[in-house]
Amino acid sequence: MAYIVDLRSDTVTKPTESMKHAMVNSAVGDDVFGEDPTVNALESKLANLLGKQAALFVPSGTMANLIAIMVHCNKRGSEAMVGNLSHIFRYEQGGAAHVAGVLLSTIQNKPDGTFDLQEVENRIRGSDIHEPITSMIAIENTHNVCGGKVLPLQWVDDLSELCKRHSIPLHLDGARLMNAAAYLSASPERLVRGVDSVSMCFSKGLSAPVGSALVGSYHFIQQARRMRKMLGGGWRQAGVLAAAAIVALDEIAPQLGLDHKRAYRLGKVVEGLFLKTFSVDVESQHTNIVLVRISERSSLNADQVLTRLAQVSLAETQGDCKTPNDEGVIVKAICFNDKTMRFTLHCEVSDADLWLAIMKITFVFKELDAAYPIKS
Amino acid sequence: MAYIVDLRSDTVTKPTESMKHAMVNSAVGDDVFGEDPTVNALESKLANLLGKQAALFVPSGTMANLIAIMVHCNKRGSEAMVGNLSHIFRYEQGGAAHVAGVLLSTIQNKPDGTFDLQEVENRIRGSDIHEPITSMIAIENTHNVCGGKVLPLQWVDDLSELCKRHSIPLHLDGARLMNAAAYLSASPERLVRGVDSVSMCFSKGLSAPVGSALVGSYHFIQQARRMRKMLGGGWRQAGVLAAAAIVALDEIAPQLGLDHKRAYRLGKVVEGLFLKTFSVDVESQHTNIVLVRISERSSLNADQVLTRLAQVSLAETQGDCKTPNDEGVIVKAICFNDKTMRFTLHCEVSDADLWLAIMKITFVFKELDAAYPIKS
Amino acid sequence: MAYIVDLRSDTVTKPTESMKHAMVNSAVGDDVFGEDPTVNALESKLANLLGKQAALFVPSGTMANLIAIMVHCNKRGSEAMVGNLSHIFRYEQGGAAHVAGVLLSTIQNKPDGTFDLQEVENRIRGSDIHEPITSMIAIENTHNVCGGKVLPLQWVDDLSELCKRHSIPLHLDGARLMNAAAYLSASPERLVRGVDSVSMCFSKGLSAPVGSALVGSYHFIQQARRMRKMLGGGWRQAGVLAAAAIVALDEIAPQLGLDHKRAYRLGKVVEGLFLKTFSVDVESQHTNIVLVRISERSSLNADQVLTRLAQVSLAETQGDCKTPNDEGVIVKAICFNDKTMRFTLHCEVSDADLWLAIMKITFVFKELDAAYPIKS
Amino acid sequence: MAYIVDLRSDTVTKPTESMKHAMVNSAVGDDVFGEDPTVNALESKLANLLGKQAALFVPSGTMANLIAIMVHCNKRGSEAMVGNLSHIFRYEQGGAAHVAGVLLSTIQNKPDGTFDLQEVENRIRGSDIHEPITSMIAIENTHNVCGGKVLPLQWVDDLSELCKRHSIPLHLDGARLMNAAAYLSASPERLVRGVDSVSMCFSKGLSAPVGSALVGSYHFIQQARRMRKMLGGGWRQAGVLAAAAIVALDEIAPQLGLDHKRAYRLGKVVEGLFLKTFSVDVESQHTNIVLVRISERSSLNADQVLTRLAQVSLAETQGDCKTPNDEGVIVKAICFNDKTMRFTLHCEVSDADLWLAIMKITFVFKELDAAYPIKS
Repeated sequence: MAYIVDLRSDTVTKPTESMKHAMVNSAVGDDVFGEDPTVNALESKLANLLGKQAALFVPSGTMANLIAIMVHCNKRGSEAMVGNLSHIFRYEQGGAAHVAGVLLSTIQNKPDGTFDLQEVENRIRGSDIHEPITSMIAIENTHNVCGGKVLPLQWVDDLSELCKRHSIPLHLDGARLMNAAAYLSASPERLVRGVDSVSMCFSKGLSAPVGSALVGSYHFIQQARRMRKMLGGGWRQAGVLAAAAIVALDEIAPQLGLDHKRAYRLGKVVEGLFLKTFSVDVESQHTNIVLVRISERSSLNADQVLTRLAQVSLAETQGDCKTPNDEGVIVKAICFNDKTMRFTLHCEVSDADLWLAIMKITFVFKELDAAYPIKS
Repeated sequence: MAYIVDLRSDTVTKPTESMKHAMVNSAVGDDVFGEDPTVNALESKLANLLGKQAALFVPSGTMANLIAIMVHCNKRGSEAMVGNLSHIFRYEQGGAAHVAGVLLSTIQNKPDGTFDLQEVENRIRGSDIHEPITSMIAIENTHNVCGGKVLPLQWVDDLSELCKRHSIPLHLDGARLMNAAAYLSASPERLVRGVDSVSMCFSKGLSAPVGSALVGSYHFIQQARRMRKMLGGGWRQAGVLAAAAIVALDEIAPQLGLDHKRAYRLGKVVEGLFLKTFSVDVESQHTNIVLVRISERSSLNADQVLTRLAQVSLAETQGDCKTPNDEGVIVKAICFNDKTMRFTLHCEVSDADLWLAIMKITFVFKELDAAYPIKS
Repeated sequence: MAYIVDLRSDTVTKPTESMKHAMVNSAVGDDVFGEDPTVNALESKLANLLGKQAALFVPSGTMANLIAIMVHCNKRGSEAMVGNLSHIFRYEQGGAAHVAGVLLSTIQNKPDGTFDLQEVENRIRGSDIHEPITSMIAIENTHNVCGGKVLPLQWVDDLSELCKRHSIPLHLDGARLMNAAAYLSASPERLVRGVDSVSMCFSKGLSAPVGSALVGSYHFIQQARRMRKMLGGGWRQAGVLAAAAIVALDEIAPQLGLDHKRAYRLGKVVEGLFLKTFSVDVESQHTNIVLVRISERSSLNADQVLTRLAQVSLAETQGDCKTPNDEGVIVKAICFNDKTMRFTLHCEVSDADLWLAIMKITFVFKELDAAYPIKS
Repeated sequence: MAYIVDLRSDTVTKPTESMKHAMVNSAVGDDVFGEDPTVNALESKLANLLGKQAALFVPSGTMANLIAIMVHCNKRGSEAMVGNLSHIFRYEQGGAAHVAGVLLSTIQNKPDGTFDLQEVENRIRGSDIHEPITSMIAIENTHNVCGGKVLPLQWVDDLSELCKRHSIPLHLDGARLMNAAAYLSASPERLVRGVDSVSMCFSKGLSAPVGSALVGSYHFIQQARRMRKMLGGGWRQAGVLAAAAIVALDEIAPQLGLDHKRAYRLGKVVEGLFLKTFSVDVESQHTNIVLVRISERSSLNADQVLTRLAQVSLAETQGDCKTPNDEGVIVKAICFNDKTMRFTLHCEVSDADLWLAIMKITFVFKELDAAYPIKS
């Protein structure tokens, strides 16, 4: 079987030994009755961690965001304002509209994951009978499509102040909130101080097998619990998963900085190749995501590059031409779009793995840069 | 009672004498049973006029658009691509999401009401399980928020070709389609040749009291009829309204060019004032809508201007200061936003009315331009 | 062209001369701006008539009921309790679920259109997270499927008291409310005293061409106005229709008793035939609807009977066998189900028309009773 | 800490040692990418077990049913016919309406969980524009509210035949399908032969911690996978849960007969008390659920009985009056309604536990029967 250095996503991370131990040694109960002690412990821990009143453990980040929309947008004809590059708009299948009946009003994301606050203010809709009711604003931190960017604290605070002025709830899609906290060396509580609700995920960089959480006020979570049940997210002895999430917070979260360092190293290496075809903006790379862009002037597309990357053998990178890749080491990443590849670091990628990946990546990039020259 | 020169919207137009005659002298029946001969006649007439198979008479343009979305977007997790300045996105209360469960994916409108076709192509979503299914694209002609702009025929044809290539239905919000046809001196059929469905309105510039239509293939209209019933648009002896719509097509549509000429005259007059505060782009003004923009550098807002306009007396415009407006002539327009006023011409505004309006508008614009000087 | 005695429904009624006069002689305006004086007059008149604060003029009874559901059921996961024979459950295409996202919880109608109040009380759901929230109860008066039955005032009062005790809004589908008032010789206000909202229809027995109304508190109607706009029921110079509705209330409503008398006469005639095949329960027939039931033991179905009825000539009823029906008089009714036919009286059916209908109906009933004998 | 004999529900069952072993020793992967080998193994195993093409692992039975509704009811204005005592109608918060936009048309359940097939046939709606489209029929086996009843095979086959005749998909809520199979000593495949889709649950009597499955055709499951993602049921390393589900099928399912025997024993004991207040219908008790009914003529309600049951000490049942229950054994059951208590047997209730429970139950029943005599 192949040994895969899987840089496609931090969602591929598997439970650690410590998590497995916790999963089978923690007390569980029927969470629909509110009787799973480990779920209850996780929910308390999260509320404390984020300085909110309550939390709810749910199967996925998509469900956490969907529930937040359902609870905040409680008037018929509501809209939620979200970034045009947000996960909510792009990767949640339009559930906001189809399931929650809520219009998504997209506002253009800047490269750093923020958007223009003046435009937000202009776009808030009032009581005109022709218009929907602006019932929620959502941000994303770290911002996935923007390359794992961490939102500036000041901007979040300013947006929060704007929201309060208009009495509009502010939701944070914090799927990778712990990466943001690690980057800023700030407490998670500080990052979410100004927001009304937060979703966060345990099965991305935190390596737990399954689960996300929604965090907010007592009243908010009470309603969220009803919505979770309606969507089919009411699970029974979920303590087996909550146990892993607790370990994730205690043991993996403190290590996220290592992923960021490795991502930086990969970025620097690619940058140092000085290729016309492939570029990476290392300076504005914050966390565990490395976006490599293919020049618009190149005829190459991301698929071709990744196909070649998956195929090349280590021997070949050492000079043995056309050697089949039978050492069984495969390096994987994903296409973000036609001209962008995403490499994501996570706790299952060691320094040694990264070294293997870098060998192959640099070889393939140089090879393709030569084979598909860009006219200047 | 005051004599109002109402330039707020062409929706204020009342039925003409000829329409009234038709309304009470046409045969009617129960349209839910399909037995209203005048409704049936109108629907046939429209299908012929637009070169499509069938039509459906509905209470409003909002319902026509909503039904089109419901029929075209027939898979769960669908999205419709629309301009960010479209009526569907801005002024239909998010019904696409709330009623139809469809995500609106907005694409940036250019000043001429079109949008970038390459971006459309990039934004079409495929079969990825994270993403909604792009099930419809909608355009608007003439484009209201863009100032009554007529879409270039070539652009519509190109978009149509793109849609066919991707098997995505193309809908036209043609609330003011007859204005577009008048501007282009083209048959309405030519304008909608490449689109799959069209909504059009009889109670705007066409002056009928109530009613819009949805036009498309036989199969499309059959489904639309079910949707109309579900939304509560199934009406009984609607022939009384259809009769007026028929007159509107026969008698008012041919006169729309006059409204365009009057709009041009108003635009030219405002332009000719050479004021720093107020500007109008007459050259790119196509139909019956005049957008007057207030300089961003002015402290004035549209509300102030329109309040003063409603208040000023004719005597005052002739030099009698502070005369109360007791001649009873009031000129009205509407704010589009803080810095934009819309003046809309229609068949109830005669040359004489326009002359009255121009007197007051020029006086007020000059007065306010002087009172609120812009620092250069 | 054929002369049709159309007993299918009171919805087939056409506007009277007096209505036509009003339609073209009443002041109109843009109702979306709230400026149609005739619509405003109708809405005031209705609020007064029913002793409520406000009213809203809408295109159909289906929309009126749908809006009521949307406004009352304002929590996610709501249910509305309705009779299993109610129009809302049977004939509104499930819009409550599809458009409003509301579960209909049906409760068994008794033959008189009421249902068991103890069962209502048992079925009200509470705060259990597994269950929807009972947010509305709806009744229908007169009750269409129950044969135009008028609900007992005491029962409505008792239900109203029950609803108040549980803080659940009570909605009345009063499409034929004026028929109920006529039957009881009571003011409409008395009939709706205990309910929170009422829909009523002008284009059924009241003979107006198009339109229904929703009546309730000021706050309720304010929200209803938003919902009407979202559904596409925002119409412009709707005064042309409101004018007819006003005439309907003033001139047709006082005459509804005549329809009831004619329905009684028709019922008595059928009863007096003493046929095994066809029965009618005249004693419990309240208003303008005559339900004729075909014996379950007969092999005949309603379609056959009505086909024959439409076909038979007057000459044939006078003894001329096999005469084609070329006198051009056609009598129509509708199948309610396989074994039930509905004959509906209304202001367009005069005594002479009724006499024609009775001639044909009695002939056909006797003929078929003989041709399809029931074994005893 | 108290020792609880928890007869409230079979959902309280915790993972067995064998399950725990499997959970930490099975290979896992990212199920959103389709790469979790244990999830894939479970899905294959289920498809084989039930003789269908494919399966999907989801967080709950509520989600499985909701997805089935979303996939089968794929036309706007659809209805699903379900029993009025079904879990879908009563305990899933109206998600069919609120999330899926589908009308539930309830049909009266008989005491054995079936309903009248003639009524089903009469209630199927056709193409009338007033009516929803009957798009699905759902049954429940075993039937929870009917006391764990197993549906007669012949009835399911007849209904299946009816559905095929009308081209309406038949869904089975088989949350406790394995109990039904155990009762009938039939293969699960035989029980679902005539249905198009099946949901089944691993965290009820099967004792797995979390998870249900949806089973059906390849095409059905493909669509279901999209719906699961939209609802937020897309989970990552779900193999940790699927591993337990596999053990549940292999090790717990074959033991379900024991629960049924214990339920029978409990039923017989209660029956043998010959009390006027408490009755149980042992003969028609099929599986692991014992419903005890309180006489309508008694003033007692279920809450009172269960409160007393939770409180009574073993010593007291042996004759020591007013002894506080400090031995720490608590027996729990739940109220189904005011006059019905449900006792559910499952693999965590041993013979010894049952003996403890019976001691307390018999004591309390006799005590209350004496204290609240029923007048005859």
